[in-house]
Amino acid sequence: MNKKQKTVRPKARLPKGLTDTGAAEIRAMGEMLATIRKVYESYGFEPLETPAFEYTDALGKFLPDSDRPNEGVFSFQDEDEQWLSLRYDLTAPLARYVAQHFNDLPKPFRRYQTGSVWRNEKPGPGRLRQFTQFDADTVGAASVAADAEMCMLAADALEALGIERGDYVIRVNNRKVLDGVLESIGVDPHDTDHLGKRLTILRALDKYDRLGAKGVQYLLGEGRKDESGDFTKGAGLTGDQIGKVLGFVTAESGGREETLAAVEPLVAGSVTGGEGVAALRDMDALLSAAGFDADRVKIDPSVVRGLDYYTGPVYEAELTFETKDEKGRPVRFGSVGGGGRYDGLVARFKGQDIPATGFSIGVTRLYAALKSLGKLEGAAARGPVVVTVFDKERMADYQRMVQTLREAKIRAELYLGNPKNMGAQFKYADQRGSPCVVIQGGDEKDKGEVQIKDLIEGARAAESIASNEEWRESRPAQFAVAESDLVKAVREVLARHEDET
Amino acid sequence: MNKKQKTVRPKARLPKGLTDTGAAEIRAMGEMLATIRKVYESYGFEPLETPAFEYTDALGKFLPDSDRPNEGVFSFQDEDEQWLSLRYDLTAPLARYVAQHFNDLPKPFRRYQTGSVWRNEKPGPGRLRQFTQFDADTVGAASVAADAEMCMLAADALEALGIERGDYVIRVNNRKVLDGVLESIGVDPHDTDHLGKRLTILRALDKYDRLGAKGVQYLLGEGRKDESGDFTKGAGLTGDQIGKVLGFVTAESGGREETLAAVEPLVAGSVTGGEGVAALRDMDALLSAAGFDADRVKIDPSVVRGLDYYTGPVYEAELTFETKDEKGRPVRFGSVGGGGRYDGLVARFKGQDIPATGFSIGVTRLYAALKSLGKLEGAAARGPVVVTVFDKERMADYQRMVQTLREAKIRAELYLGNPKNMGAQFKYADQRGSPCVVIQGGDEKDKGEVQIKDLIEGARAAESIASNEEWRESRPAQFAVAESDLVKAVREVLARHEDET
Repeated sequence: MNKKQKTVRPKARLPKGLTDTGAAEIRAMGEMLATIRKVYESYGFEPLETPAFEYTDALGKFLPDSDRPNEGVFSFQDEDEQWLSLRYDLTAPLARYVAQHFNDLPKPFRRYQTGSVWRNEKPGPGRLRQFTQFDADTVGAASVAADAEMCMLAADALEALGIERGDYVIRVNNRKVLDGVLESIGVDPHDTDHLGKRLTILRALDKYDRLGAKGVQYLLGEGRKDESGDFTKGAGLTGDQIGKVLGFVTAESGGREETLAAVEPLVAGSVTGGEGVAALRDMDALLSAAGFDADRVKIDPSVVRGLDYYTGPVYEAELTFETKDEKGRPVRFGSVGGGGRYDGLVARFKGQDIPATGFSIGVTRLYAALKSLGKLEGAAARGPVVVTVFDKERMADYQRMVQTLREAKIRAELYLGNPKNMGAQFKYADQRGSPCVVIQGGDEKDKGEVQIKDLIEGARAAESIASNEEWRESRPAQFAVAESDLVKAVREVLARHEDET
Repeated sequence: MNKKQKTVRPKARLPKGLTDTGAAEIRAMGEMLATIRKVYESYGFEPLETPAFEYTDALGKFLPDSDRPNEGVFSFQDEDEQWLSLRYDLTAPLARYVAQHFNDLPKPFRRYQTGSVWRNEKPGPGRLRQFTQFDADTVGAASVAADAEMCMLAADALEALGIERGDYVIRVNNRKVLDGVLESIGVDPHDTDHLGKRLTILRALDKYDRLGAKGVQYLLGEGRKDESGDFTKGAGLTGDQIGKVLGFVTAESGGREETLAAVEPLVAGSVTGGEGVAALRDMDALLSAAGFDADRVKIDPSVVRGLDYYTGPVYEAELTFETKDEKGRPVRFGSVGGGGRYDGLVARFKGQDIPATGFSIGVTRLYAALKSLGKLEGAAARGPVVVTVFDKERMADYQRMVQTLREAKIRAELYLGNPKNMGAQFKYADQRGSPCVVIQGGDEKDKGEVQIKDLIEGARAAESIASNEEWRESRPAQFAVAESDLVKAVREVLARHEDET
């Protein structure tokens, strides 16, 4: 390092894709997380916390790749030159934890975890490099009852947050059904020569929400040129094959039984496909028994959930209501979470499959949705009562008043800035959202009194008073009380505005 | 990356200095943080969250240093080759935040923040590479009233956590008094030629707690050889100078006024020293007015607080009671937090001093202390009621019972492991701390009944029953109820054990 760097002042700025979070959002987010936690706990899940970074290989990433040294994750080396990475999700650390402590864990192992994850990806609107997830996973349960429960958990969590039935839907699919359809058109998911084609098809289907049937049709066939002119090569399926695949993807028919009836013939003759349909039927039965009908949990063959490690059921939590974007255009919030079964993840360590299934809420996205629905209003907090400093020689007196208020459980503080200007002190109290300020000049001191200025009432009165002179004379919402009545008087002001926060 | 790495299975392990946190500790820690938050809020502080990493230069670190590329912090580069570092405390990000948003903030700006920080240091017992801090800071307040308040905040937070008066003390000192003493022995803190000597003296005094007067005496004089034989060069002070410095460090005399009376003559003639004593007197007056006497907040000239950026008052929160270590030896917990005034920190960005003062709790250490005091016992949570699977064809029935319990706000879950062995299901419920399990075989189904097995009562009874046979016959703590009475019966079991968790 050279000396010059030390004397140049750094600019106060954040790296792109990162944000600071202010008081109102922290409080609202805290309430939201507490609500989700309560639902997860009621389902019997137990909390776990893992550290922010792990060995890169334990997270399932292998670094450094010569071309892409930091692909997707933020990585650095320890003093022994071993690679470490910030976690990019909460599932990979769970797999490490389960593999490490397998013998000591109750099985099935049900855990929830919430926390930040980091992605070394290009940031954009609504896409941050640090964001929060809230996951529940059941490890060691092969039964689809575990998957059905994840869908119920998702629905219950959204309703507990105030999202009404009809404004969300949990959409379920099963990878095996999709593989059955592929089998029926001659793409064998177990044939390694067909892997490339299968991936291209999955990638195309994953874009169904965004591109619609027409766009996906091109991607399944010859290929597609997007608005920017970039050409994406297609899967090269024939028209007949494309028809079958699209027929499957669009088979959603409202009720779960109706959808299954539409899907079943499309996988006739495929063992894998048959298993997938049977698993969906079992989930349907469990969901119905628990009272979760198709208005909450739908079977929807268009759900693909990316190209991940999923091996069976996959599910997506979607908000279906519309709001307006900043330009006033209607937008659907879309997916706020999802998950699925990933029986192979722990096998990376142990060499044997451990059945596992999980659901993850994208907290940051869900927060934005709740905010636009006006479901987070209760979280605002009243600012503190500010005891002003009229005479700086008497700081100890003012400090005592603050302490008296705090002992009475009233949020209060002493004005700690430069006290020479009372106007600045009132302005500060306004900025802080204070309900009232306390003032004691020499006159009041002599009389054993304090002045209390009700800032909420004052602001209201100010709007209706015409002249400055009238303002000064009426001194709206300011009154004197005996110092010994300080707590009582402040409590009265607080009670007056209790319902107005 | 080569192919071979892909086929080798990684070992499931954590990097050293990192830990996982289990359910009991997460719950207890959550309660503890909520209590601290409540006290900080009552003092008028507002929450802020900043991201886990920042530009390295914005945190006040300059990387890469050719010798120590990662000294103290974990660092990595973004795609533009700018250095980023995980935050090592919560103060440096605050300084960045304040500099960035200075004009929009209420001034003084009072914020609290809690979260993980990361240190790239050698881990050891009680020294982790990721740990939690809980900070409160007031930026833009030059008054020592802000410092006095930090001490009150610290005392109130410890008492709110259940630490009794007498079991802790907040110790206060002022850097300026120390500088006055140095001035009086001819070491001018403003003379750059004396900086090296001043640092050596500060480093020596910071070891007073650990080495005592004798060890520090050597470090102030010729130097000191430690047990391992390593020699630390001393400050080279004369016997007379050492006497003065040690006289200051040991001037603590119980009451705050007595200590000040002992200190004042030691800085006679030093302007800086006089300012320091006056500032301590002002703090004393404010603390006394608010009812914080020397049993809670002491003036103690031995407090140095490292070599940091502190410019005036410094304070340390210390637990004074003794506990036993794992070998049964008595240990004092010592410092669980501290802070001070750092008027220069924001100046790194803005080129002008902004007065600021703050207090930081070492949450991980404090948690250990509270645990050893038995103050965290209320946090244990009862496990879920487990509905067992007697007949796997009837999963939907069992799922419905689970849902009935959850709708009655009872934490409950369906057993999701392999159901063929009832013993494994009971063992699972035991491991989870379940109060009871629900069983329904074919007989019960026919009679419209369920069996409820009270696991807590059962474990107790098992201890007092001699033979296996007697056990089987008496079926302790297991009873049948009509399925329609499931919720009522489970509630009765829960109520029976309510006070026993």
